[in-house]
Amino acid sequence: MFYTLKWETDSVSFIDQRVLPLEEKYIKCSDYQQVAVAIKDMVVRGAPAIGIAAVFGVALGVVKSKKDTIQGLKEEFSHITSVMRATRPTAVNLFWAIKRIEDVFNISCLETNDVNKVKEKVLSVALAMYDEDANINKMIGVNGSELIEDGMNILTHCNAGALATVAYGTALSVMRAAKQQGKKIHVYADETRPFLQGARLTMWELMKDEIPCTLLSDNMSGYLMANNKIDIVIVGADRIAANGDSANKIGTYSVSVLANYHKVPMYFAAPLSTIDLKTPEGCDIPIEQRSLDEVRVINGKKICPEGANAVNPSFDVTPNSLITGIITERGIIYPPFNESIRSLF
Amino acid sequence: MFYTLKWETDSVSFIDQRVLPLEEKYIKCSDYQQVAVAIKDMVVRGAPAIGIAAVFGVALGVVKSKKDTIQGLKEEFSHITSVMRATRPTAVNLFWAIKRIEDVFNISCLETNDVNKVKEKVLSVALAMYDEDANINKMIGVNGSELIEDGMNILTHCNAGALATVAYGTALSVMRAAKQQGKKIHVYADETRPFLQGARLTMWELMKDEIPCTLLSDNMSGYLMANNKIDIVIVGADRIAANGDSANKIGTYSVSVLANYHKVPMYFAAPLSTIDLKTPEGCDIPIEQRSLDEVRVINGKKICPEGANAVNPSFDVTPNSLITGIITERGIIYPPFNESIRSLF
Repeated sequence: MFYTLKWETDSVSFIDQRVLPLEEKYIKCSDYQQVAVAIKDMVVRGAPAIGIAAVFGVALGVVKSKKDTIQGLKEEFSHITSVMRATRPTAVNLFWAIKRIEDVFNISCLETNDVNKVKEKVLSVALAMYDEDANINKMIGVNGSELIEDGMNILTHCNAGALATVAYGTALSVMRAAKQQGKKIHVYADETRPFLQGARLTMWELMKDEIPCTLLSDNMSGYLMANNKIDIVIVGADRIAANGDSANKIGTYSVSVLANYHKVPMYFAAPLSTIDLKTPEGCDIPIEQRSLDEVRVINGKKICPEGANAVNPSFDVTPNSLITGIITERGIIYPPFNESIRSLF
Repeated sequence: MFYTLKWETDSVSFIDQRVLPLEEKYIKCSDYQQVAVAIKDMVVRGAPAIGIAAVFGVALGVVKSKKDTIQGLKEEFSHITSVMRATRPTAVNLFWAIKRIEDVFNISCLETNDVNKVKEKVLSVALAMYDEDANINKMIGVNGSELIEDGMNILTHCNAGALATVAYGTALSVMRAAKQQGKKIHVYADETRPFLQGARLTMWELMKDEIPCTLLSDNMSGYLMANNKIDIVIVGADRIAANGDSANKIGTYSVSVLANYHKVPMYFAAPLSTIDLKTPEGCDIPIEQRSLDEVRVINGKKICPEGANAVNPSFDVTPNSLITGIITERGIIYPPFNESIRSLF
């Protein structure tokens, strides 16, 4: 069985998601800078996985610090977290996870003058957050599986799978739970340009778990919906605003407009840590613009003329009016999301 | 300057659209079988270009025939046209163009017993159809350009350019005419998976003509519309039913749903030969399903796991309710299309 990321004695290992599905290769990061590069370069991606990766990066930096005073360690800690925060601006889990380990660190520094005790505490909390993420995802799957009926065709976009979390996934956890309950399902996976996470990662995960699945180009889902081939859409989320507006991989918004037009239910699956109460509405979510060559080059070869201009917004925001429900570890919530989200916390 | 296809003394030459934009290579077909393969393998594509390519293929077969009796030539002609008709099932221009050359051939066979005179007649009509196509496209551009205002951002899908016709294009003819009138425009080109005609061909044509343009992945147009970046959508068509329902490259339907949701006008640009009065509604248009490896492989490399299932509908149908207008060589027509189309003929 594969793993997305793993803590090892003095390093953090990641499956290299950039070379999947043709190669199953693991990358070992020996210091926090390497972890930051791995997050930035999308060795690891998916909001929950990025959160734990950042925490592991911080823990690695702390454990390996040569500082022998609390004050020295504090200064280094501040630098480590700022490097980690700068890796991916859209994923709120990153900030949430770093804030959590920061609180643990600060309290620990107040409680003891022993640098080693602080290191131990940070590491034990980082490992606990990893286990917690796995359990949360499992619950998302169990909760969401009540929406799935025998024979359903499910559309998903990007990869909200085990590879996007530490285990199970979010949207894919729902499919895994449904399968485990003996329901016959079939998944349509958008290839998800420009980075092709659907083709490369979602198809790989689903085939590994023997869940019947079919790949499509992103522009085919309208055709499938018009031909009654899609019963439900389930996707992940990178950040959910307090009013339910949800940011996810570019193209999710288009799918939600299509689902709305064809009266296909549209669900987002995400842990509570993805919901950012400090972000009132979707328009407050910053949209990361990534390298234009992700659009212009595929498999190392230009698909357009030399010098062509391009755009590459990495995410888009689906307004709450287009969302049927949000599947969380505490159950499925429905509109009005302002109220249902508040009641969760 | 490039050409899409050209008649030469004893051959037909095509620019090889499969290797654009990185190479500008021409392929010479010395017999009609080679022309049929060129159409089938998408050396040439785009409904109007396919129509003229098929006519040139028929003319090449007739001119090169060794039959010395009208009866012999008739039998060979029947075989040639059936080979040509079997190349691409969705493009109605193909059938329309072959029917037209067939009528010329049959009348010519009634008028003379001289095999050479029949050959001359078929060739002269084929060449006239080529010139006529260029003129028709030019008129589509002039007629459509009245929709274009200074500063507009135009979205297009696939390639409805000079490469899809013998010259000017259909949707791109509108942009060329607007530019010639001194209007400042900017074009967003969907990359158009799986065959990437937008990235490879539309961007190439627009950049050759110095029309400002930007490439996007197909799943980004919803995001752009939500951010008020698209003022109008203009696409080509492969077949238009008598009620206005329009078949075009896969993904066009999704764009039309998005345009409708965002109140962006959605126009199809096509010659009258694309309108098939014998097809009452869109659901009567056959949708070609192409090789699954077009979806699974990009630039010679698999993007999904070995053994992955996929779908590859090559076209979809936009219902007339989602179409603002259809730009033809005789002017722009508006709903109700049943009536406005009838009045054109």
